[in-house]
Amino acid sequence: MPTTTPPALPEGGLRIVALGGIGEVGRNMTVFEHAGRLLIVDCGVLFPEDDQPGVDLILPDFRAIEDRLEDIDALVLTHGHEDHIGAVPFLLKLRPDLPVVGSRFTLALLTAKCREHRQVPKVVEVKEGELRSYGPFDLEFFAVNHSIPDALAVAIRTPAGLVLHTGDIKLDQLPLDGRLTDLAGFSRLGDEGVDLFLVDSTNAEVPGFVVPEREIGPVLDNVIRKASQRVIVACFASHVHRVQQVLDVAVAHGRRVALVGRSMVRNMGIAAELGLLKVPNGLFVDLDEAMRLPENQVLFVSTGSQGEPLSALSRMARGEHRQISIQAGDTIVLASSLIPGNENAVFGVVNGLARLGATVVHQGNAKVHVSGHSPAGELLFLYNAVRPSNVMPVHGEWRHLRANAALAVSTGVDEEHVVIAEDGVVVDLIDGKAAVSGRVVVGHVYVDGLSVGDVGESTLSDRLVLGEGGFISISVAIDTSNGRAVSPPTVSGRGFSDDPKALDQAVALVEMELSRTEAEGITDTHRIAQAVRRVVGRWVAETYRRRPMIVPTIIAI
Amino acid sequence: MPTTTPPALPEGGLRIVALGGIGEVGRNMTVFEHAGRLLIVDCGVLFPEDDQPGVDLILPDFRAIEDRLEDIDALVLTHGHEDHIGAVPFLLKLRPDLPVVGSRFTLALLTAKCREHRQVPKVVEVKEGELRSYGPFDLEFFAVNHSIPDALAVAIRTPAGLVLHTGDIKLDQLPLDGRLTDLAGFSRLGDEGVDLFLVDSTNAEVPGFVVPEREIGPVLDNVIRKASQRVIVACFASHVHRVQQVLDVAVAHGRRVALVGRSMVRNMGIAAELGLLKVPNGLFVDLDEAMRLPENQVLFVSTGSQGEPLSALSRMARGEHRQISIQAGDTIVLASSLIPGNENAVFGVVNGLARLGATVVHQGNAKVHVSGHSPAGELLFLYNAVRPSNVMPVHGEWRHLRANAALAVSTGVDEEHVVIAEDGVVVDLIDGKAAVSGRVVVGHVYVDGLSVGDVGESTLSDRLVLGEGGFISISVAIDTSNGRAVSPPTVSGRGFSDDPKALDQAVALVEMELSRTEAEGITDTHRIAQAVRRVVGRWVAETYRRRPMIVPTIIAI
Repeated sequence: MPTTTPPALPEGGLRIVALGGIGEVGRNMTVFEHAGRLLIVDCGVLFPEDDQPGVDLILPDFRAIEDRLEDIDALVLTHGHEDHIGAVPFLLKLRPDLPVVGSRFTLALLTAKCREHRQVPKVVEVKEGELRSYGPFDLEFFAVNHSIPDALAVAIRTPAGLVLHTGDIKLDQLPLDGRLTDLAGFSRLGDEGVDLFLVDSTNAEVPGFVVPEREIGPVLDNVIRKASQRVIVACFASHVHRVQQVLDVAVAHGRRVALVGRSMVRNMGIAAELGLLKVPNGLFVDLDEAMRLPENQVLFVSTGSQGEPLSALSRMARGEHRQISIQAGDTIVLASSLIPGNENAVFGVVNGLARLGATVVHQGNAKVHVSGHSPAGELLFLYNAVRPSNVMPVHGEWRHLRANAALAVSTGVDEEHVVIAEDGVVVDLIDGKAAVSGRVVVGHVYVDGLSVGDVGESTLSDRLVLGEGGFISISVAIDTSNGRAVSPPTVSGRGFSDDPKALDQAVALVEMELSRTEAEGITDTHRIAQAVRRVVGRWVAETYRRRPMIVPTIIAI
Repeated sequence: MPTTTPPALPEGGLRIVALGGIGEVGRNMTVFEHAGRLLIVDCGVLFPEDDQPGVDLILPDFRAIEDRLEDIDALVLTHGHEDHIGAVPFLLKLRPDLPVVGSRFTLALLTAKCREHRQVPKVVEVKEGELRSYGPFDLEFFAVNHSIPDALAVAIRTPAGLVLHTGDIKLDQLPLDGRLTDLAGFSRLGDEGVDLFLVDSTNAEVPGFVVPEREIGPVLDNVIRKASQRVIVACFASHVHRVQQVLDVAVAHGRRVALVGRSMVRNMGIAAELGLLKVPNGLFVDLDEAMRLPENQVLFVSTGSQGEPLSALSRMARGEHRQISIQAGDTIVLASSLIPGNENAVFGVVNGLARLGATVVHQGNAKVHVSGHSPAGELLFLYNAVRPSNVMPVHGEWRHLRANAALAVSTGVDEEHVVIAEDGVVVDLIDGKAAVSGRVVVGHVYVDGLSVGDVGESTLSDRLVLGEGGFISISVAIDTSNGRAVSPPTVSGRGFSDDPKALDQAVALVEMELSRTEAEGITDTHRIAQAVRRVVGRWVAETYRRRPMIVPTIIAI
């Protein structure tokens, strides 16, 4: 869709623009504007897909706010997942003194992350039930249940109306920590009148309800009870309640626990310190000690549940881990979701472990995972509690947004008041009605190694071509006084063929072509390069039906 | 695992080696040897994964039989899917007169495929219940239900014993065509005594039973009944029964049908000709005519259910199809599985269609697909019918093989008689006991464009590096009499950065390095190239923390 400059925001209106997170799953960042001031909710990263090779992270696109950094009154973080906090250090580089508002655990994770970027964020700790004001934005926080402790939803009151943003949410009615999503609070807001409801769409296509997290415990117990050798449980490094259940089962079966993976060690350390993870004295052992324990008295809690190739679990599956070598009869549990796109990597790990003789338990063959996001049945509860006049589905791809919108309509929200707005689409809430008013540019901002932003679509498109077909380079030195080659051409390929003779024919063709350009008196190196590229490109297409990149270099002597 | 030359096969023994299909899903090909003669069951292709970029197809590795082509008595095809017949033309190139034995529909699909390779296979049509002998191999064929019509299992009798190979199988008890998997026949074989049972492992990890194919019809009916505009149903081009149900629903709702996609048109033409697909007169229209029909009187049956980027459906999702442009309110049904690894592509298509306003129905939100492979519950029925003395799980990755082996053991097969053998592992059936006797080399044979086999692991590994980080090339002409550069070095990158100044610093470093090598009297172009590679590699790692391929070309003048 083309960019259409949105009109000036009428006085008393509220403007909402997502700089990430709508039309995709990740890099959530929503900007609210009222009376010339800005409030940001979340600032996360997105992990790259196959068509974004070599990219480490994708950031929200800050362009729409980079001239207005001083107008931002606060950044609110709903919870501590990477797709909600991962890009904060990049925003703080632009505005180091920005107040960052969030719950205790969220801010502890953020502070640890910022430390790696050598930043000390200016944090403001809040709890459910609390009220805070930043500029014209009066905020109220609500407890929310999700796959990480201490998540919040935020209500934003301005003269334009009352907005409720769920963040990531589900409605586990028997949460492990007893901290329910505050549906009663949402209902109270509903009584007051919610003008705009931004709702997590991730599971909107999935019918029904999520099974309580606490039902995982007995399944883990059953698996680990039967294990006579080593047990390794992999899960997300921020899923404190999942790890808690693993620890409880370990205790029940007389196993001590070693944490494996940097983020697991770090996050569980923070969780234990804040009292969110209960660790009996002496339960944890370090890896060296764990390796000395009898096999039936140890359990490893590891990262790598998404098949990340450098993770400890992947290395174990390849038989390349420095300390832990998988034995036939070991038990490995992937107590985690399978994020779409990671299937090959995850099943690669499962197959590697199975090949070594391990028993591998995963969500495909046992109930060792539940989602952290409300599916359709729970979303209906949310809509009926909040009874919003306008709805804007967030956090999801188009298929999720459409499904969520349909759910809103099914509960009685006027179809005209359900706004599907992907990243960059400007939504204005004016006189109680939310509607699209324009669009700002929101592109992909890639982090590759130490640089942000210098890898763009053109570089990625080159990488895709190179990754599919490799390249053929032709280098030759030309005397530009007469267009004569002063050396035989060097033709070589990488990623093209294993056959050392594959390009022999091409050398002769290039030599013929160079004789021709010389005969025609062509001395311009660009024209010679073009001629060489054409002749090699045509030859390779006809001979091999392949499309390597053709890279001529003509050196002028 | 290392290759260990298997011992000579003792007289009276039967040897089994898979040249593809075990330890992976695809390129199924099993070689049976007895009394110096060979019988092959299936010869399919495997589709490449992310770590095999640019590859079109992967073939079974024929090396183990290429010196024994004349020993092959026959090739038996169990059914017409690509992973069972796709590599036949490549085998026929080596042995054009090889008898190819299969059912009518299987052979019709094979013949169409061979025509594209300008081959006319020597086919032998068989039906369930028939007996044939090839050399020492006495074959008996059994009806099998699968996601393609006319599938067969094959029993192989030799003096070494009775072997039963299921091919791909499921036990739909109410198949659309009434053609049940011949469990009664399998039981009769069981009474006779099955010495070795090769069993489809694809769904061994999945508990329970497959819902009958015919239950898809009412779901499709319900979706299409509600549609007021165009309907597009995408499914596999060989799934005749699925298409039959779509046609029946189209008839019921007064819609005419256009087939979209070359393989869909071809296969349904064959199926209709053989009486496997019942098409009422006048139901089919061509695409042009379909486009002129009122929107609620037309239905398209299309390929592209796996998100293939060049398919009609993907083009529609991107708004790039020449004839069909998706309108808000159109209905698209993906009546197909989601093959692991294709999730991003498929959901990309779903999101593209949802963004255009279409209603997209897929197996994630409606029961519009059932699998073609027996899950655990059905496999137990098979084991209990056949009561084999030895079992060899086939058709699956390690996780599937292990799960299938566990099922066999649970029905009473002696654990010592369950052989998990991946590709290349040699299994000998001697005196009623199957056991691993060695291993032959089975590698990946890649087809890329017109060539087979010249793309190998080294080319793929280069492609992976290039795809992740692009390359930086440095070209310079050197006077080899004194090691002096006769031109400034050309440093350029592709797939490295969008920033035109990204490599400016590197040029100066290369110039300094060339001065150094000259000063040290280095005139050898290889040593100069190494020096340049080192200095640029170090600079880029430190400055960018990236790993592009560094490609120096030193031209000797």
